[in-house]
Amino acid sequence: MVHGLREQFETDLQSITDDLVEMTHLVGSAMGRATTALLDADLTLAESVIEADEHVDTLRTDLDERALVLIARQAPVATDLRTLVTALRMSADLERMGDLARHVAKLARLRYPSSVIPAELRGTILEMGQIAERLVVKAGSIIAQRDIKAAAQLETDDDEMDALHRGLFSLLMAPDWKHGVETAVDVTLCGRYYERYADHAVAVARRVVYLVTGEPYIPPAS
Amino acid sequence: MVHGLREQFETDLQSITDDLVEMTHLVGSAMGRATTALLDADLTLAESVIEADEHVDTLRTDLDERALVLIARQAPVATDLRTLVTALRMSADLERMGDLARHVAKLARLRYPSSVIPAELRGTILEMGQIAERLVVKAGSIIAQRDIKAAAQLETDDDEMDALHRGLFSLLMAPDWKHGVETAVDVTLCGRYYERYADHAVAVARRVVYLVTGEPYIPPAS
Repeated sequence: MVHGLREQFETDLQSITDDLVEMTHLVGSAMGRATTALLDADLTLAESVIEADEHVDTLRTDLDERALVLIARQAPVATDLRTLVTALRMSADLERMGDLARHVAKLARLRYPSSVIPAELRGTILEMGQIAERLVVKAGSIIAQRDIKAAAQLETDDDEMDALHRGLFSLLMAPDWKHGVETAVDVTLCGRYYERYADHAVAVARRVVYLVTGEPYIPPAS
Repeated sequence: MVHGLREQFETDLQSITDDLVEMTHLVGSAMGRATTALLDADLTLAESVIEADEHVDTLRTDLDERALVLIARQAPVATDLRTLVTALRMSADLERMGDLARHVAKLARLRYPSSVIPAELRGTILEMGQIAERLVVKAGSIIAQRDIKAAAQLETDDDEMDALHRGLFSLLMAPDWKHGVETAVDVTLCGRYYERYADHAVAVARRVVYLVTGEPYIPPAS
């Protein structure tokens, strides 16, 4: 590749990375606002999350298109190729995270003006929402900086999410559960949305590790 | 590309297509057997599904590796490139379908020797399992034959799955539900596994349509 082409290619790659980081901001904000909408039974906020998800989908489609054009035209090899293929996978994870935030918002909208979450579970859901936001902020900085040390911390956050998710199930299944089946079903789905969201954030981080080291990240057995 | 190289490339592409079709067989069989394990509370069968999923994961890793090597070495353009990138996406869908079948089997194992599914829901779950298997058989033949007409039929099957899924929720939420919260939670998760499985099968079919026509498949509003 002659010098000018290489520079153009670097610019194009950087703009793809920037868009991935932008997607982490959008889906992080979406999950934060969806959690608030859920806990406050705020219909307006829920609807804004549902509508905003389209922008994430558009960003993803646009990013994928550009990555594919680059692969086709530049025939990149080694790290450049891996970077582009990894970008396609990360955009898929991030789009899915946007969908999951939208699912949480839809649940808030479906039950409005009632609140989905009983008082004694609000703390757990709030914490799940906060961990989800922390995870995606870290994923964004891992994408931007290729900081693979931070990827290990993200696994710890994900363990916390799993523990909260298990705790939620114990409460649902306890003999003294008094909120009926409809609420149990709603909370079950909510819990799964947060947990899957976290899984995708971890997948994003692991993809960066693989990109940088060429080795899949195997978390230590916990 | 000289003649011999082109022939080798065609052979490599075909072997990737063959492996995708093989993955549809494996994840279809996994969901069929997971459904039986769930309905019969069959621990041995459940465990065999859980163990077999590793093979799907291995197939996917291997297929992805080969597709990436082809992209890197052959610098394919146009349809060839699209075929390879689509293969990477389909392998991700199919691996996820394997995970979802494993989740169903794990639920059967978790509740063993009890049965997860109350008598009056067995019919619905059986039908969801059957539609899941039909969907993946069709997806396999769509991959193998690039039969984009069949892709439209698959959307109809998916509508049936959605209707069954909604029906399941109505039963769970009905005031005369008498199986308690634990079962409601289990059935909620099960329902979601089947529904997501179907969504991924539809995604596979849509990817083939996009590959063949260059246009995303937009299903008619239902």
